[in-house]
Amino acid sequence: MRVELLTVGDELLLGDTVNGNAAWLGRRLTDHGLEVTRSVVVGDELDVIVEAVTEALGRADAVITTGGLGPTNDDVTRDALAKAAGVVLVRDPVLERRLRERVAAAGRELRPMALRMADVPEGAGLLANSAGSAPGLRVRLPGGTVYALPGVPSEMRTIMEEVVLPELTGVARSRGHDLPQARRVLRTAGIWESELAAALAPVEALDGVAVAYLPAPAEVRVRVTAAPDRLDDVERRVRGLLGPDAVYGVDDETLDRVVHRLLAERSATVATAESLTGGLIGAELTGMPGSSATYAGGMVTYSTLLKQTMLGVPADLLARHGAVHPDVAAAMASGVRERLGATYGVAVTGVAGPDPQDGRPVGTVFVGVAGPEGPPVVIEPRLPVPGTGAEARGMIRRMTVVHALELLRRVLLGLPVRWEAALGGGDAREDREV
Amino acid sequence: MRVELLTVGDELLLGDTVNGNAAWLGRRLTDHGLEVTRSVVVGDELDVIVEAVTEALGRADAVITTGGLGPTNDDVTRDALAKAAGVVLVRDPVLERRLRERVAAAGRELRPMALRMADVPEGAGLLANSAGSAPGLRVRLPGGTVYALPGVPSEMRTIMEEVVLPELTGVARSRGHDLPQARRVLRTAGIWESELAAALAPVEALDGVAVAYLPAPAEVRVRVTAAPDRLDDVERRVRGLLGPDAVYGVDDETLDRVVHRLLAERSATVATAESLTGGLIGAELTGMPGSSATYAGGMVTYSTLLKQTMLGVPADLLARHGAVHPDVAAAMASGVRERLGATYGVAVTGVAGPDPQDGRPVGTVFVGVAGPEGPPVVIEPRLPVPGTGAEARGMIRRMTVVHALELLRRVLLGLPVRWEAALGGGDAREDREV
Repeated sequence: MRVELLTVGDELLLGDTVNGNAAWLGRRLTDHGLEVTRSVVVGDELDVIVEAVTEALGRADAVITTGGLGPTNDDVTRDALAKAAGVVLVRDPVLERRLRERVAAAGRELRPMALRMADVPEGAGLLANSAGSAPGLRVRLPGGTVYALPGVPSEMRTIMEEVVLPELTGVARSRGHDLPQARRVLRTAGIWESELAAALAPVEALDGVAVAYLPAPAEVRVRVTAAPDRLDDVERRVRGLLGPDAVYGVDDETLDRVVHRLLAERSATVATAESLTGGLIGAELTGMPGSSATYAGGMVTYSTLLKQTMLGVPADLLARHGAVHPDVAAAMASGVRERLGATYGVAVTGVAGPDPQDGRPVGTVFVGVAGPEGPPVVIEPRLPVPGTGAEARGMIRRMTVVHALELLRRVLLGLPVRWEAALGGGDAREDREV
Repeated sequence: MRVELLTVGDELLLGDTVNGNAAWLGRRLTDHGLEVTRSVVVGDELDVIVEAVTEALGRADAVITTGGLGPTNDDVTRDALAKAAGVVLVRDPVLERRLRERVAAAGRELRPMALRMADVPEGAGLLANSAGSAPGLRVRLPGGTVYALPGVPSEMRTIMEEVVLPELTGVARSRGHDLPQARRVLRTAGIWESELAAALAPVEALDGVAVAYLPAPAEVRVRVTAAPDRLDDVERRVRGLLGPDAVYGVDDETLDRVVHRLLAERSATVATAESLTGGLIGAELTGMPGSSATYAGGMVTYSTLLKQTMLGVPADLLARHGAVHPDVAAAMASGVRERLGATYGVAVTGVAGPDPQDGRPVGTVFVGVAGPEGPPVVIEPRLPVPGTGAEARGMIRRMTVVHALELLRRVLLGLPVRWEAALGGGDAREDREV
């Protein structure tokens, strides 16, 4: 069962809007075992839409379009579908009545243009839209079926969940399609994609198992696809090859969630002391509801002086080494832990660029974690620095956040903090312990 | 000059990744007067890529592909381009040497697989990549030129800006294409899109002038398009209709940049005290290089107790009203200003959800700014709350950041802080002064 997506709208080609609808549709269709084989964006042009729909049905069993069903003149999807089907548009009296009622209920006047939303290609099916005014349309063409949905995400999603997904999976099942392949995402932090790929070659070589690497700054999600009854075994193999602590979470278990869970299990809290990240670690740790139980608060000591006055980093240390030094990271972590009365303190100091600082090159970062036992642990993550521009600055800051949370995770679990340990003693060398 | 985009990657079809590359490419190409006529996403399948490239060149003058140039087995774009061109892949000795040097410099070992990144279709041009390891490729085919770029956004953008955009605009100019219509983006914060649209109807009605509204949380960018010699007049009209202080910046002059500039002009600094935003305001104010001159630092007082112990918010105030109260925002702003020795203090307290707090509903937010003169200014921005889920939480936090920076801007400029003033005394009512 092959499905293609066709997103309609000039604003997408111009880049004014990011195509979140296509990503959502891809995820939901894949979740249901349907194969998304292509995704196309075209502008608000009638003939281009007709051509794109026809082409798509030459390759796939069904096409889902989004956008172009609104009331304005540039909404031409329904006209295009009528033309593709060789039929005329007819005004649906029930739709027209509902439209008039809705507008009247809002105390507004109906603009004649809005009545276009009651027009449907002759013979098309209506897909109920419980979230808005324009229904979706089902148009059967020689090559397959077109489902036309509104571009408003909430309306598109509602019609998909309530009508289109049940219908498509029903068709797939009636054609005797197999159970869908199951997918699982194994999340790693601080290991490079090429190292993961090298370590996981034996899994990639397994018949009936697909491995994909989804990189983000300082993180790689490893997505394995296999028959549902083989997934547990595949996950075991991956963990065996990477080392038991390399996978920090599964599926949507993000690093901040894992850290919160580990803290909660220990009735512990964490406080943050940030320099180059300017508050990003605190923001990450407060992204999910209920984080106040395990996140106390933090200090952004952006200037060197504040590291001394607010966090108690020794003045002579700062004078001797500058602010970017492993001992400064350790003192910041201890300082914020004590001052905020938290169980753990996490601190980062480093050079986000574009200029070097205190004689340290851009990308130098030290991450420290102080806990109730022993001296603070400090690492210097080796960041693959992509130049020195504005993008590089953002990347360095984001990678620092990930390394900070990953170090905290490892300390909470009592794991070794040299990353290469995660690769089973291999030669990978992403970070070095200071 | 028609350009098509081809994004390669299973993760995009599956919806694991949102196609931000296509949006960015659309924006930059349009900015340069090049027409983006279609955008296609296909999976990591060699023959499908060959087919899609060939189809695209049947319609457009140039195709830009992103993705599939990495070192792993599912990166097949370079193989597909070789096949489309009917040539073989050859290993480039310079690329190979650079790759080896780069890996050695990182203290790692080169995986044989990584050498794939030194392979290029015979006769292809290399597009220098100053931001990463894989260069882009220029492959000339009968129908036109293919520019193949890496999928990593920072690398893709660098090659586009440095190589592809200059080349494409040069070609367009040599073919005698007209100067593009000029565009200007007028940035507003805290005014709703419908209010802007109502106020700017006279500009929309002008012949030869197009107005587009690009909304983001608590911000709307108004993009006007017109002949280059009319843009200044159009901007004047927009400012006249919205009131002189409604447009905080033009084009890429973001709110954080404006605030930094205003602070620098006054030799002033700002410190932040954050509750529901958890560090996002500090992160925003440290996003651009050189921000340490005007941003001192901040405190994330996520728990109610820390508001008292770290910022000096009176205990009886917190006991009487809870942490979400205008007087708490004022005390936080004054407290952080004094404790960090900054000229200004910005503070936010509120309920990001999903649950109400201290009897206040989700979306209640108070923003305070304390300065060297007079008592702190506090506003309660009226946020359009989109439910109470995880998305709503993120939206509320982001909108709070924008309102905090906008309030600081208005205080720095001595502007009225009731937002409706920005609409020239109209009846729009986004915020109320407390």
